[in-house]
Amino acid sequence: MSLERTLADLAAVVGGKVVGNGAVAIRRVAAIDEATTGEITFLTNPRYAKHLESCRASAVIVGLDAAPQSGMSSGVAFLEVSDPYVAFAKILQLFSPSQPLSQSCSLQSSIDPSSTIAAGVTVFPHAYVGARSKVGPNSALYPGVFVGTDVEIGSDCVLHPNVVVRDGCRVGDRVILHAGVVIGSDGFGYAGRGEARVKIPQVGVVVVEDDVEIGANTTVDRATLGQTVIRRGVKIDNLVQIAHNVTIGEHSVVAAQAGIAGSTKVGKHVTIAGQVGIVNHVEIGDGAMIGPQSGIPRSVPAGVILSGGIAAAPHHEWLKVMTLLPQLPKLWASVRSLERQIAQLLKK
Amino acid sequence: MSLERTLADLAAVVGGKVVGNGAVAIRRVAAIDEATTGEITFLTNPRYAKHLESCRASAVIVGLDAAPQSGMSSGVAFLEVSDPYVAFAKILQLFSPSQPLSQSCSLQSSIDPSSTIAAGVTVFPHAYVGARSKVGPNSALYPGVFVGTDVEIGSDCVLHPNVVVRDGCRVGDRVILHAGVVIGSDGFGYAGRGEARVKIPQVGVVVVEDDVEIGANTTVDRATLGQTVIRRGVKIDNLVQIAHNVTIGEHSVVAAQAGIAGSTKVGKHVTIAGQVGIVNHVEIGDGAMIGPQSGIPRSVPAGVILSGGIAAAPHHEWLKVMTLLPQLPKLWASVRSLERQIAQLLKK
Amino acid sequence: MSLERTLADLAAVVGGKVVGNGAVAIRRVAAIDEATTGEITFLTNPRYAKHLESCRASAVIVGLDAAPQSGMSSGVAFLEVSDPYVAFAKILQLFSPSQPLSQSCSLQSSIDPSSTIAAGVTVFPHAYVGARSKVGPNSALYPGVFVGTDVEIGSDCVLHPNVVVRDGCRVGDRVILHAGVVIGSDGFGYAGRGEARVKIPQVGVVVVEDDVEIGANTTVDRATLGQTVIRRGVKIDNLVQIAHNVTIGEHSVVAAQAGIAGSTKVGKHVTIAGQVGIVNHVEIGDGAMIGPQSGIPRSVPAGVILSGGIAAAPHHEWLKVMTLLPQLPKLWASVRSLERQIAQLLKK
Repeated sequence: MSLERTLADLAAVVGGKVVGNGAVAIRRVAAIDEATTGEITFLTNPRYAKHLESCRASAVIVGLDAAPQSGMSSGVAFLEVSDPYVAFAKILQLFSPSQPLSQSCSLQSSIDPSSTIAAGVTVFPHAYVGARSKVGPNSALYPGVFVGTDVEIGSDCVLHPNVVVRDGCRVGDRVILHAGVVIGSDGFGYAGRGEARVKIPQVGVVVVEDDVEIGANTTVDRATLGQTVIRRGVKIDNLVQIAHNVTIGEHSVVAAQAGIAGSTKVGKHVTIAGQVGIVNHVEIGDGAMIGPQSGIPRSVPAGVILSGGIAAAPHHEWLKVMTLLPQLPKLWASVRSLERQIAQLLKK
Repeated sequence: MSLERTLADLAAVVGGKVVGNGAVAIRRVAAIDEATTGEITFLTNPRYAKHLESCRASAVIVGLDAAPQSGMSSGVAFLEVSDPYVAFAKILQLFSPSQPLSQSCSLQSSIDPSSTIAAGVTVFPHAYVGARSKVGPNSALYPGVFVGTDVEIGSDCVLHPNVVVRDGCRVGDRVILHAGVVIGSDGFGYAGRGEARVKIPQVGVVVVEDDVEIGANTTVDRATLGQTVIRRGVKIDNLVQIAHNVTIGEHSVVAAQAGIAGSTKVGKHVTIAGQVGIVNHVEIGDGAMIGPQSGIPRSVPAGVILSGGIAAAPHHEWLKVMTLLPQLPKLWASVRSLERQIAQLLKK
Repeated sequence: MSLERTLADLAAVVGGKVVGNGAVAIRRVAAIDEATTGEITFLTNPRYAKHLESCRASAVIVGLDAAPQSGMSSGVAFLEVSDPYVAFAKILQLFSPSQPLSQSCSLQSSIDPSSTIAAGVTVFPHAYVGARSKVGPNSALYPGVFVGTDVEIGSDCVLHPNVVVRDGCRVGDRVILHAGVVIGSDGFGYAGRGEARVKIPQVGVVVVEDDVEIGANTTVDRATLGQTVIRRGVKIDNLVQIAHNVTIGEHSVVAAQAGIAGSTKVGKHVTIAGQVGIVNHVEIGDGAMIGPQSGIPRSVPAGVILSGGIAAAPHHEWLKVMTLLPQLPKLWASVRSLERQIAQLLKK
């Protein structure tokens, strides 16, 4: 953990320009109000510029031409880059190498002999791999991971503790599944009603493409027939529900506790905020952005920005609003009636 | 997997009428736009009728008298039934037999000697069964399943990976608990406030009756005293919260991410859509239907259909609406004042 | 389980006054409509006072001076206390001692030799403890629990089945983590967009202080830098999402399925109801109360009571309201126009 780089080295890695002493040694990344000697911090939000004066970091990542002209009395150096947040992420990656793993299969794991475990794979104790499944090079299956039968897991994947990937599902390369994620649970499908209700077998699968990350305890149901698909680069937060036969397009982002109902197709580069609910069998166009807690009852064109969340108000005022809201049609009628009356008065 | 049936055989199984060649061999079920030779598909939604012309399936399940009069140029056969969706489900069940299991207890599992494991039960590696618990014939406990002490699990149940059933809870026959389900976690109950807050022990249990299915990562809390009850035939989707002392009546359906607070009684044949929230200590009458994202602050009579979800709107328009919504009482007052003024004007 | 106490004993434990026969033997606590001989029940809600007449319990916990003056024909005794609900909780604790555990480490568990397991700790089969982690006296790790590397778990903690505490996180004393809880999953943080999106390593930790209880399948993300903090005495319900760098102040309560976005600071003694969503980077003042399903888009002052939930209405009426709601600005404009017209009419 005693990794140390000069600021000039870091500038070369992220493609930036040093303002000040490039030879200063950096050993860690820290928040601007906590950073001290040997640490680099970053400034993306002008609101935090006030912290610069009292900043005790050895260096600060800032935007192009954003280093103070006059320099800093404290001798802080600056690293100017086109996107300070991306540079921060990359430098933090540099200082946070993933922990080395055993690259072996624990004797306390359970691995079907017909499965194929590639070189460099780590299988922790109490992990399970079923018949005919494949796990690609350098992937890690933490304790309690369940990989069913005929599953494919790509290379360099991390399946955190207690992740479940059920039979026949496929996971690409460099996929991160956080603790408790369930891939390939049965879709919620029945025919008929009451006593006569019949379960529709969910015989499809889930396909998770490369570079996807899925948050803790999120559930992705298998398709009834065919596939539920999470395309390349998609990022999904914790406790999200993805129903059967849903497709989520490349590089879309879904925040915590959102839910997407069956067969809905979400386009590319879509942003879905927290606690959003999207109905089944609709399409969300590429690049659409949907604000927190919104309900989406129909298809959404590409590129639009939608909101539906309601800001909470003082309880007693809100009670009044809530009493009146259902009477909106009556209010409307009153206003229309007033308009007619006034029109008549004006005619006279 | 090389199961093959004639269309006439399938017609006999589901009680339908063949229109066309009953001898055609069917090996699989597929979606209407993907089905090909040897496959049967179904048509329930008239919107998809356009797909019929290009359909390459060997057979199509349709409603009574719904087979095209003129036959199909492509020679597709039809299976007419009273409910095509139910027939589809049953035929899909026929072609999707559950995978044969070992019907034995893994040496890598942990089973208390005082427990009773019936014949035909499969206990996977890393599953745990506590003292004095009973598991009925042909049930399966997948890896990572936890069955506490004094638990009863009926026959033909499937407890998917990492399901937890805590002490004293009872699960009926043919129950399916999907991965990560928690049955019998402590209800959320405290007395007093702040420093003086005291945990109320949750000493009741959960009873899950026959033919219930519960979705991945759903949580069902044990009762404070007495029972939390999920009655026969109830179907619950993923990530649902069922609080302590709740009862859900027979054959009711609860969609993903809904939450039902403590001691609430949900009737029979109730439909609760996704992300609904129901307050504690109320009753939802038999057959009621509650639309997505609705909030239910009081009891609901039998048979009613309620909605409370709000459709998202373009962000900038919504901001205006949200600014005005809290002023609804003021608007109301303005309209009332206008009505008075006009009444006076009209009097003159 | 054959614990038996006289009512006078119980009165001494909770600091109350017996009205009636203090020598009566109590063996169990039960609900007022189910309690029978040998059982004590409680009456906090006057709504249930009607049950008193038919009550067959041996004793009833009531408020000060709340025992019926005339006594009960049935000979029920009363225990008068200042807070009947707290007394009920304490007496229920007395009759519900926690099950004795083995206080040993199962050979089927996996414990890194560099970890420190204190005296009296119970480690169940299939639990995992990583390198250099510490578990304090008398704590219990149920089956499927994952404790990563460099983790600290205090004394008298209960980690229910399949709980995950990832690397570097710290858990205080007397903490209860219910089944499926995930502590220390990566925060949801990326820099850049689309193809160029970069994961921001989440190198901070989660700190859970003493006397915290966290409900089943709830997720608490680790900080990007620094700490996500759950302070002393906080109680969190099931399926809650706590994002990276959030702080929740002492003795606050968060109900099921609520979500708190990144870096938000929740004060002390705050109450957050079910399905609430709170945006990132805001502050919720001490003692604030937020009603069910509310959306919180900005900071909230101390002590306020906010609501934002909408009561569901009959579906057909709601459809009309929902059509009109987006037209609120237009309605507003109509009313303003009417006001101007009437003002002019009145001038004439």
